[in-house]
Amino acid sequence: MLQRHFDEELTDLKTKLLRMAGLAEDQIDKALTALVARDSALARQVIERDHQVNALDVEIDEDCIRLLALHQPAARDLRLVTTAMKIATELERISDLAENVCERAIELNDEPQLKPYIDIPRMAKWARTMVKESIDAFVKEDAMLARKVLADDDFVDDLMEQLFRELLSFMLETPQTITRAIRLSFISKYLERMADHATNIAELVVYLVEGKIIRHTTPPGASKDGLA
Amino acid sequence: MLQRHFDEELTDLKTKLLRMAGLAEDQIDKALTALVARDSALARQVIERDHQVNALDVEIDEDCIRLLALHQPAARDLRLVTTAMKIATELERISDLAENVCERAIELNDEPQLKPYIDIPRMAKWARTMVKESIDAFVKEDAMLARKVLADDDFVDDLMEQLFRELLSFMLETPQTITRAIRLSFISKYLERMADHATNIAELVVYLVEGKIIRHTTPPGASKDGLA
Repeated sequence: MLQRHFDEELTDLKTKLLRMAGLAEDQIDKALTALVARDSALARQVIERDHQVNALDVEIDEDCIRLLALHQPAARDLRLVTTAMKIATELERISDLAENVCERAIELNDEPQLKPYIDIPRMAKWARTMVKESIDAFVKEDAMLARKVLADDDFVDDLMEQLFRELLSFMLETPQTITRAIRLSFISKYLERMADHATNIAELVVYLVEGKIIRHTTPPGASKDGLA
Repeated sequence: MLQRHFDEELTDLKTKLLRMAGLAEDQIDKALTALVARDSALARQVIERDHQVNALDVEIDEDCIRLLALHQPAARDLRLVTTAMKIATELERISDLAENVCERAIELNDEPQLKPYIDIPRMAKWARTMVKESIDAFVKEDAMLARKVLADDDFVDDLMEQLFRELLSFMLETPQTITRAIRLSFISKYLERMADHATNIAELVVYLVEGKIIRHTTPPGASKDGLA
């Protein structure tokens, strides 16, 4: 049996992850365009296209299993392969969230626009950048870039809080806006969760490179899911 | 170097996953008690205790890496170990969501109770059972039990929809209830996400046992995250 060199297969794996991340980023972009341009046809396209990301998740998973079985890598190489498997799962969930954004967008597009969308596109842009940078950090095994992603997450959380307060004041003043305001708050929550998935990826990268476990190090009570 | 038999180590791994699942289930229970009995001290205990679940996640991850490195399992055994790693991640997120429930419970306990909690404890009970059964399905490699978990997820989604409509009518009738109603709808969303994580575990088990990939087989547009 012809076995290609392990490093070569690893490069292929990284390329595939980059492709999957590119697709997920594109799903985020298009979901936001569907919302902002009130384009429900585009939203449906994004929903249709989610299966491409799913297919890559399955493919990467199979590639990793094959790599482990054929090459039985040790130490760091082993960790690299199991990390790639986990990253694919995170990317798949990011794409699911883009699908959720589109579902809410389609509902919102059926009603008059509640407000100009300003913070939501900003959140999406940050989330998308975090996804891109977390994957770049993995591919380059760059812990410093991964730590930048971790720091950026706070900003996305702050944007969500701010938007949520604004939406709450809409709801309190004009109860007719409640349904739309809630849909928008769901969208901001989806974007915040995308950023969380990017954070998960970044934490995996820091562990891979530095051997330090930094997930689970947020002090108790300092959750980023505040609503108050 | 003394290497214990692979099967023995695998049994230890499954035992540890069961322990982690037990802890996560207990976090769900206690979070719900904290909400229903309006016990903020208990809520804070749950938040404090999340680190125990996190520690087990890290430990299981390390165990799996060690198992892969030492025994270089092939085929199904290899898949079993990588599945265990992924399951630990799902359990860790379930415990995070129990923490989120507690955060909202603490906020809610500071205000008069909006309504008797009926559907939320039911949702929690279902989610908890799904977590337990999905792990049992893994340990026993029981695809039929895993498929039962998948079917149960629809029921949790329906309960969330129903509760959400009820909360919406509260908000529309009495704007003073908006903040509390939103906190409650967040809690129901956390519970629904716990059920989703149990579903993820069940899908991994079906794949492990039957070799069939059934994640990603929901038809486009049939997402369970509906708000409409």
